[in-house]
Amino acid sequence: MSSSELNETLELRLKFDEQGLIPAIVCDVKDNSVLMFAFMNTDALAQTQRTGIVHFWSRSRQSLWKKGETSGESFAVEEIRVDCDQDVLQVIVKPQGQGKACHTGRRSCFYRKVEGAVLKFI
Amino acid sequence: MSSSELNETLELRLKFDEQGLIPAIVCDVKDNSVLMFAFMNTDALAQTQRTGIVHFWSRSRQSLWKKGETSGESFAVEEIRVDCDQDVLQVIVKPQGQGKACHTGRRSCFYRKVEGAVLKFI
Repeated sequence: MSSSELNETLELRLKFDEQGLIPAIVCDVKDNSVLMFAFMNTDALAQTQRTGIVHFWSRSRQSLWKKGETSGESFAVEEIRVDCDQDVLQVIVKPQGQGKACHTGRRSCFYRKVEGAVLKFI
Repeated sequence: MSSSELNETLELRLKFDEQGLIPAIVCDVKDNSVLMFAFMNTDALAQTQRTGIVHFWSRSRQSLWKKGETSGESFAVEEIRVDCDQDVLQVIVKPQGQGKACHTGRRSCFYRKVEGAVLKFI
């Protein structure tokens, strides 16, 4: 399938990288906020679709990762989107638990901004 | 720096991958919508900070890529955020041109959703 066909097809033709992974941007259905970013493999995506609860592939642990399994901070899937060339996913979710998606206890992993050569909390 | 120190530091300690790249999620300042996803290297980030216009590293062309240089669909930087472990950027932008961020002419690259084994336009 050519690149322009890939842009318009309604066939699911996901492109996983050489490690078998695809990036997944997780956004809150409430206001589109980016909550976190992680990777899925085919198994994580299949489990996510089957259960309606977001699963990732943990690169550090090299294992399937049901987000929130221990913390309770899981994500219910509202919608899964693909980008034009089908090598990135956007997963729109309804956060469960207390809405602390980040392991630091914050709502989102993106809680600092770059100001020149340093960071500031936002 | 330990992982928990990395989560709380105000030092910029970006983690680039083995290709020297860091993922960048581009969001519209207007409503947080994810517009596109690409990669930056240190040069692309430096040019982005210096000019206030988003630059990426094109993996296919292996060159610095000033987004919108030919199409006019550039992004003015509003804010650059980092995630907890500083290996992902979120770039909040004001789209220039006609607001067709995607090379297909759409506002966002994420214009299809996964419905089971197929896609639907959203």
